[in-house]
Parts: sequence; C-alpha cells; structure tokens
Amino acid sequence: MTFDIDGILNGKRLAISRALSLVERNDTDLIALTDALHGHLGNAYRIGVTGPPGAGKSSLVDRLIEIWRTAGKTIGVISVDPTSPFTGGAILGDRVRMTRHYKDEGVFIRSMATRGSLGGLSSKAQDAADVYDAAGLDIVVFETVGVGQVELDVAEAADTTLVVIVPESGDEIQAMKAGLMEIADIFVVNKADHTGAEKAFRELRGIIQLRLQTADWKPPVVKTSVVKPEGIDDLDKTIQRHYSYLKESGILKEKFRHRQHLKVRDLILERLQTQFWTPERKEIMDAALQKPLDEMPSPVQLMTQLFKGT
Amino acid sequence: MTFDIDGILNGKRLAISRALSLVERNDTDLIALTDALHGHLGNAYRIGVTGPPGAGKSSLVDRLIEIWRTAGKTIGVISVDPTSPFTGGAILGDRVRMTRHYKDEGVFIRSMATRGSLGGLSSKAQDAADVYDAAGLDIVVFETVGVGQVELDVAEAADTTLVVIVPESGDEIQAMKAGLMEIADIFVVNKADHTGAEKAFRELRGIIQLRLQTADWKPPVVKTSVVKPEGIDDLDKTIQRHYSYLKESGILKEKFRHRQHLKVRDLILERLQTQFWTPERKEIMDAALQKPLDEMPSPVQLMTQLFKGT
Repeated sequence: MTFDIDGILNGKRLAISRALSLVERNDTDLIALTDALHGHLGNAYRIGVTGPPGAGKSSLVDRLIEIWRTAGKTIGVISVDPTSPFTGGAILGDRVRMTRHYKDEGVFIRSMATRGSLGGLSSKAQDAADVYDAAGLDIVVFETVGVGQVELDVAEAADTTLVVIVPESGDEIQAMKAGLMEIADIFVVNKADHTGAEKAFRELRGIIQLRLQTADWKPPVVKTSVVKPEGIDDLDKTIQRHYSYLKESGILKEKFRHRQHLKVRDLILERLQTQFWTPERKEIMDAALQKPLDEMPSPVQLMTQLFKGT
Repeated sequence: MTFDIDGILNGKRLAISRALSLVERNDTDLIALTDALHGHLGNAYRIGVTGPPGAGKSSLVDRLIEIWRTAGKTIGVISVDPTSPFTGGAILGDRVRMTRHYKDEGVFIRSMATRGSLGGLSSKAQDAADVYDAAGLDIVVFETVGVGQVELDVAEAADTTLVVIVPESGDEIQAMKAGLMEIADIFVVNKADHTGAEKAFRELRGIIQLRLQTADWKPPVVKTSVVKPEGIDDLDKTIQRHYSYLKESGILKEKFRHRQHLKVRDLILERLQTQFWTPERKEIMDAALQKPLDEMPSPVQLMTQLFKGT
C-alpha cells in the first residue's frame, strides 16, 4: 500500500502529498485509494476557476485564499496545467503567485498535469479533490488555463465554476464568452482598473439577461481588481450565495451523485482496456501495423480480427 | 448507407459535406465510412495550425490558401472549435475570416466540435481529414484555438504543426511556448508589425537553439504580418521544406502508420464500451446511484459488481 489513509484522514501534509502523487501517476494503487476515500467525502466545497491565459486567475485565487483563511477555512488548490507531451510533466509547475501561502498550514497547493489519464482531467482532478475532501479541507479550488475540453472538465468536477475574463480581450474572447456562458456560475471581470472594464461588465450582463431569462440561477458578474485590491469581498459573498443556492436546491447532492457516476464509468473504461490488451492482441496489432502501407489491413478489419474469439 | 463513397472519391461537394456531418455526429455508419475510405488515403498533406486566441490563425490560413490556390492546390480546412457543453455545437461556427474562399471550388471549409467523441479530437479530426484525403484534396489544414489537450491532439493528427504566437503576449504565453516547443515544427511570430515582434522572434530562436541542439529538425521561426501582408511566401517555403524533410526521412510514412494505430485503438475503445453497457448493467448502475448518499456503494464496489459474470 503506497498511501497512508489514516494520515490523509488526519490531514497530515506528507500523506496528502503522497496521495496526490499517486493520483497524478495514475498508480495501480489508485483504485485502492479511491475505495479507501469513499465514505469520507462530500464535505469540501469544490470551486473551479477558469478563463483565458493572462486573466489573473492565480492572483485572484490568492486573494480569495486570504479571505477564506481569515474566516478560518482550510483550502486545497489544484492547478491544472497544460502538459508537455515530451516530458509528460506539467509546464508551469507550482504557481509562483501563490507562494506566500506555502508556509500556511491551512493551505495545500498542487499542480497537476492534464494528460495521460484515460477519463481525462475530470477524473484526475476529482480524485485529487477527493484526497483534499477526505483530509477534511473546507474548500477545494481547481484552477486552470485554456479553453475547450479542460474547462468543461473542470466545470464537471466543480460545484461552482468561476469564469474569469479581462476587459481588453480580442474578438475570440467574445466568442469564448458565449461558450463559457453555460459553464459559468459566476463571471469575474478581473483587472477592473483597466480601460474597457465597465464596457465588458455591461456587455456581459446584457448577454446574461438576454440568454438566461428563465434560469433559476443567473450568473452574476463581479468586477475585481487584484492590484488595488477591489471587489474580492464581493466575489466571496457571491460565491457563498451560490453555495447556499446549490445546497437549498439539492443541486449540491446531485453533483456529488453525478461525479460518482463519472468515476464508475472511468474505472470501467480502464479495466475494459486492461483486460482487452493481452500480449497476444498487442502482437497482432504490432504485426499488422508493421506491414507495407498498401498491405496494411483497414482499421476496421484489424479491430474485427482483434475482437474475434471474445 | 448514409454516405456516397463514389461522390467522395470524385470530390463532390455535397458528398464530402455529408460525410463530414457523419463524422461530426459520430454516426453508427462512421465505421462503414472509415472502412470505405481505407485504401484511398495517404495523399493529402496534413498541416496543423495552433496557438493562443487572437494570434490571427484564421487570417494566416486564409493567406496561405491564397498562395496554395495560385499554385493549383486544392485545400480542405477543419476548424476545431471549443464546444458548447450546453448545445453540443461548435461555438464559433464557420470562421468569418475565411468566407472569401467559400465560393472557391478548390477550397472546403468546415468547423467541427471537439467534444463528445470518445477518442477525443484526434480521432474526429483524423476521420474528417481522411474524407478530404480520399476526395483527392492536396492539403488538409487543422486550425484550432486554445492550449492543452486540443493542441496536442492536433499535433498528433497533423504531419506538420505550425504554432502561431503574437509578440505582445503575457508571461503565461512564455510558459506556453515551452510546452509548445515540442509540438511545433514551425513557429510563426504573427503580427510582426507590432511592437516587440523582433524581441519575441529573437527570444524564440534563442530558446530553440539552446534546447533543440541535437534535433534533426530545428523548428524555424518565421515572422509574418497578415495585414501588410509580409512573410507569407517565406512561411509557405518553410512548410514545403518541412514536407520534404518528412518525406525523405521516412517520418511521413511513420506518421501515417501511427495514425492507423490510433484509429484502431479508438475503434476498439468504442466497441468495448458498447458491448459492456447492456441494459441490465445500466439498470444496476442507475439503481446504485439513486440510493441515499450514505448507502451508495463505492465506485470500486460498483465497478466490481458490474464486471461480475463477464
């Protein structure tokens, strides 16, 4: 057993750190860890923070941590990094901007690579969040860069999703906003001291009013400035308001249930693959792909051949 | 049969368009289509164009198309869009900037959603590229926005990957460069008329010289400006040079082989899942997830139960 379940449940730093490494490596013991964590979950509030590069997500999270710490909360951060396909490691490493919280015993920070796990990020981020959750932390933050799949995965793993944008973005950001509309529970117009912040704020509010008229929860738009700092308290209150909404509406429990569903699905996918790829099948596959291009069987023929006898 | 293989092979627009829709929907006929295309592949040169939002990728591709059309080449473009999780459709739709090529009979443009297919983008983009390839087009361009998994998928699906950056990017772009280093065959510093272009150009060249000293192919850095326009011819020549390198070194064939491998792997994954999720198993799963949270079996227990009897 490469993990210390008692250490995790007692919030021991080393045990938590080792468990997160196990999650990241996708170690064979991950299944045992997953099973050991079950029954100790459902206490941590999971917040996803996403948006384009340069939007100031890390600094914003840093400020929020300050407020939460003052309120006595403990926090675990998972920085989701685009992965280098060459080294397999995360590109950014632990975020520089959050270093001042490193010495704080109530704060855990970890970056994770997004590549390599079968179920994609959502499965990995979720396992990592489960470690924090079981360790008794109050808040788990997923922070991620980029647009597309990664953000959708984060939204799936989080209870509340913050979408952070900056006023001076180009037209592709405009388009992104439309796509992010559906995953955002709260919009943050960061760098509110910059030119165009007021315009971005108004535009966004307009779009939301127009598009989400009938929604139970209309994503509020909060202006923040990390430099001043300004609007961070307001953001924190808005997050608390969303938490209450999730709890009272029963959505919080539904999200938990949905995540369990995804986990089962991912576990099954992995086992199916492991069972399928016997040494014999690998050999058939390799041999077929070594043939000259014009003698190579079609992928469908090859698949059919590999499935024969099952 | 929902596709017209003769029409595709004869380059008929309607047949191509319908086949691409079939790929996008991940229709059950996709397997039949894949099989029908086999044996007609390997002629199109596949170019991936990636980089952060706002780098001017579409405009750049637009200019390249101009040059290629003058040289008598036919082109198929696949714009890979971050997908709206809500509608399931692509966010940006067909790119506005390339509209002037719409009426050109030698140019095909299509946007595709990245979400939903099991094997991820690489499998879908590849199937779409295969349609263009079998239709006899000379060049297939994958264009994509974002950072992370999507770009890695595109690099996997392409013979040559262009990474487009802009001079005025923030520090996260710096970090991205490091991650993109390994997937870029050619770097493009676009908007070369902007301040800082020369600096970005020099920095990038410096990093490449330092990090890729022993590589057979050192990614050249090309400066372009779509507005002027400037450097597009140079970029085209650099692309041609990379193509020759791929061909002479045998890497082009290796890439084809690798893509076949991925396709087989994806087909198998899909079939395994389809076989596994019988109505009985779905029922067991649903029943377990309906239970009160504290009575719910752990994901591992549930998986074990579902695998019983197989």
